[in-house]
Amino acid sequence: MTAPDRTGPALWSAQAHMPSVLGRQLTITRGEGNYVFTSDGQRLFDGTAGLWHANIGHGRAEMAEVAAEQMRTLETYHVFGRYLNDRAVELAERVRDLSPVDDAKVILNSGGSDSIDVALKLARRYWQLRGRHDKTVVLSRDLSYHGLHAFGTSVAGLDFNREGYGTDALVPETARIDTADIERVRQRVAEIGPDRIAAIIAEPIQGTGGVIPPAPGYLEGLQRIADEHDILFIADEVITGFGRTGTWFASERYGIRPDIITMAKGISSGYSAVGGIIVAPEVWEPFYTDDAPIYRHGTTYSGHATSAALALKNLEIIEREGLLDRVRSLETVLADELAGIAADPRVAATRVAGFLGGIELGPAHSAERITDAMVDEGWIARPLRGNVVQISPPFTTTDAEVRGIVAAVRAGLDATSGATAPELAVAR
Amino acid sequence: MTAPDRTGPALWSAQAHMPSVLGRQLTITRGEGNYVFTSDGQRLFDGTAGLWHANIGHGRAEMAEVAAEQMRTLETYHVFGRYLNDRAVELAERVRDLSPVDDAKVILNSGGSDSIDVALKLARRYWQLRGRHDKTVVLSRDLSYHGLHAFGTSVAGLDFNREGYGTDALVPETARIDTADIERVRQRVAEIGPDRIAAIIAEPIQGTGGVIPPAPGYLEGLQRIADEHDILFIADEVITGFGRTGTWFASERYGIRPDIITMAKGISSGYSAVGGIIVAPEVWEPFYTDDAPIYRHGTTYSGHATSAALALKNLEIIEREGLLDRVRSLETVLADELAGIAADPRVAATRVAGFLGGIELGPAHSAERITDAMVDEGWIARPLRGNVVQISPPFTTTDAEVRGIVAAVRAGLDATSGATAPELAVAR
Repeated sequence: MTAPDRTGPALWSAQAHMPSVLGRQLTITRGEGNYVFTSDGQRLFDGTAGLWHANIGHGRAEMAEVAAEQMRTLETYHVFGRYLNDRAVELAERVRDLSPVDDAKVILNSGGSDSIDVALKLARRYWQLRGRHDKTVVLSRDLSYHGLHAFGTSVAGLDFNREGYGTDALVPETARIDTADIERVRQRVAEIGPDRIAAIIAEPIQGTGGVIPPAPGYLEGLQRIADEHDILFIADEVITGFGRTGTWFASERYGIRPDIITMAKGISSGYSAVGGIIVAPEVWEPFYTDDAPIYRHGTTYSGHATSAALALKNLEIIEREGLLDRVRSLETVLADELAGIAADPRVAATRVAGFLGGIELGPAHSAERITDAMVDEGWIARPLRGNVVQISPPFTTTDAEVRGIVAAVRAGLDATSGATAPELAVAR
Repeated sequence: MTAPDRTGPALWSAQAHMPSVLGRQLTITRGEGNYVFTSDGQRLFDGTAGLWHANIGHGRAEMAEVAAEQMRTLETYHVFGRYLNDRAVELAERVRDLSPVDDAKVILNSGGSDSIDVALKLARRYWQLRGRHDKTVVLSRDLSYHGLHAFGTSVAGLDFNREGYGTDALVPETARIDTADIERVRQRVAEIGPDRIAAIIAEPIQGTGGVIPPAPGYLEGLQRIADEHDILFIADEVITGFGRTGTWFASERYGIRPDIITMAKGISSGYSAVGGIIVAPEVWEPFYTDDAPIYRHGTTYSGHATSAALALKNLEIIEREGLLDRVRSLETVLADELAGIAADPRVAATRVAGFLGGIELGPAHSAERITDAMVDEGWIARPLRGNVVQISPPFTTTDAEVRGIVAAVRAGLDATSGATAPELAVAR
């Protein structure tokens, strides 16, 4: 083995096996609507909306104008202590009005991982304040993904994200629950002891775990367990929030009433790094009484004014262009197409909920190799755990483009089925 | 006690005692250079550069143009796996070139708290990968502030930030070291056992703890301890990075050679939510060998293209306008002014390092009340732990403005010295 090249690119990419991506990286330099363009001029359909975030599509001039106007006026001012900025205030109101949680308060920050850590810290702080000192354990589902700050890493149900740090989890008071069988969840809660459990966190649709919609009755079951045992229910809507399932929040679609909702991605469609949490009254009220302590949490860019202005414009665009209706329509188109490819013997299963689909391949095929082959033909899809191909394009996608990307998966299967393994293994 | 008002503002402010800030919040709606303006039209000198970040001042048209141009071209594309965007690549190169660490790699993210969590996770992952499985403990200084995600919360040397979650720290493998006495640090390292220690993290100048420059020999002492015992040395330069001390990094000023540097604030002067870490070769190389595992960390907005474009322009402005030289000059002006006020019997101590000053008040006076009185007169300063008034204006501040804000502290002392305590106690 030779020593790594110290003169190579400076950027250490995210979630990348650097020795095998170097030399075959794709540099995106331009975006327009549902397409992005590489430095080599290749045009690619963004079949994943980036990391499930680019919901209104790329390079919108209207967003650029908002950014410039806000930045000329006030790039930002923090919202610590007595200070506020008008855009942060406005965004919080807007989110409260859209939210399925009545009388909510909103904490803003810079993304999904931030939202998880603040939500889980708040759950633990809440029970301490309520005098329930033993309520420290956070439960999360097998195969879950909740960002990668230290608390999110600790509740990762995808073991490869949680492990490798020398202990079972960075924050030890965490445990996994079954991802589909509510009776097994009940057993686990009983084993741990409900009086020790602070919160259950759950993605309504598991994303990175492989696009897994909830088993019938599962989310409602979690809601009941939470209600019965004084456990906070946290819906991680970082992927599903702001329209991906055809309602503003997936909590509406599935009829759950979370105490805290985490959000990010869709709130700005990725034009700015913004996220936050929506907090129900029973959780925020103890921090608003006269004798309450400060909830000591805040980040420099909580409520960043330009980020907030961009989020507000993004939400306006989603409403103005009727994109929630469009998502419901796109869901049926995607469902039809996935029903078609499900008949292919090389496909193990397909799943869809909202405009969010997963194609699970049979063991003889590789989601990683197929998505590499697809990108050569101009289609971005993404391999997920479980040999799944992720499809989650922008809400502005046409029916023809949905058919196109599913056809591209089939073509990718054809292209890689005949190839010899060693030849493609370099792609890793 | 009455129940909290469910119809109040939706925004739950950061680090705010909500019941006492409601009704006296200051909404900033405009910024221009070293000044911001409230919704009531009051003009305020930004004597803290927001949260030590607004180094090039507010509302720069040049920054607005960069944001708009980049957003029209490509608001962002992620840098996971094979994907990159050109701006993220460019920013990483620029940071590597400015950095005091030779042959560094750069991981980008969305702010200071992000940078802490990725740095501390990386330190733990690194030792596991090197087979030193017992090296899991992270040491941090008393009075330290390292952001508020779960790992940063766990190493908080300001106890009020770490406590209240039901355990001593969310991540238990953490411990405090003396903030000034290197012999006591040596004793603590010996007690814990150096073979258990993964990393020491330290702000070169403690910020939120009260603007505390390092005791002579202290940082060099930490460096020696780290070198002798195979402990990673992490410099938290979220406040000091990119010029606050008159050099690009405070590590240069103090002659230390960290293995990892955390950064945020100054990289974009707050125009965008961006941060990251600079990683020395001994730490990144094990992740770049052919048989290395992926370092499984990444956030959606790691390397956000518009955020990176804004950071690049900010760094260009700092260089073009000679702001590092200017900071060195401003340091002498601030030091002179603080020497003047230090003679005031109501002042307990003053401290300065770079363009970063702290005025510690005597026990009969309140930094909180004085900064409230100052803002009424048009000067923003900030109360810190230890009854300290923080002064850290933009790099574009004039000598007269430095004299002005120190005079405003004196006027604040005068104004509040005569007031009766109950009258002002409502300000809390």
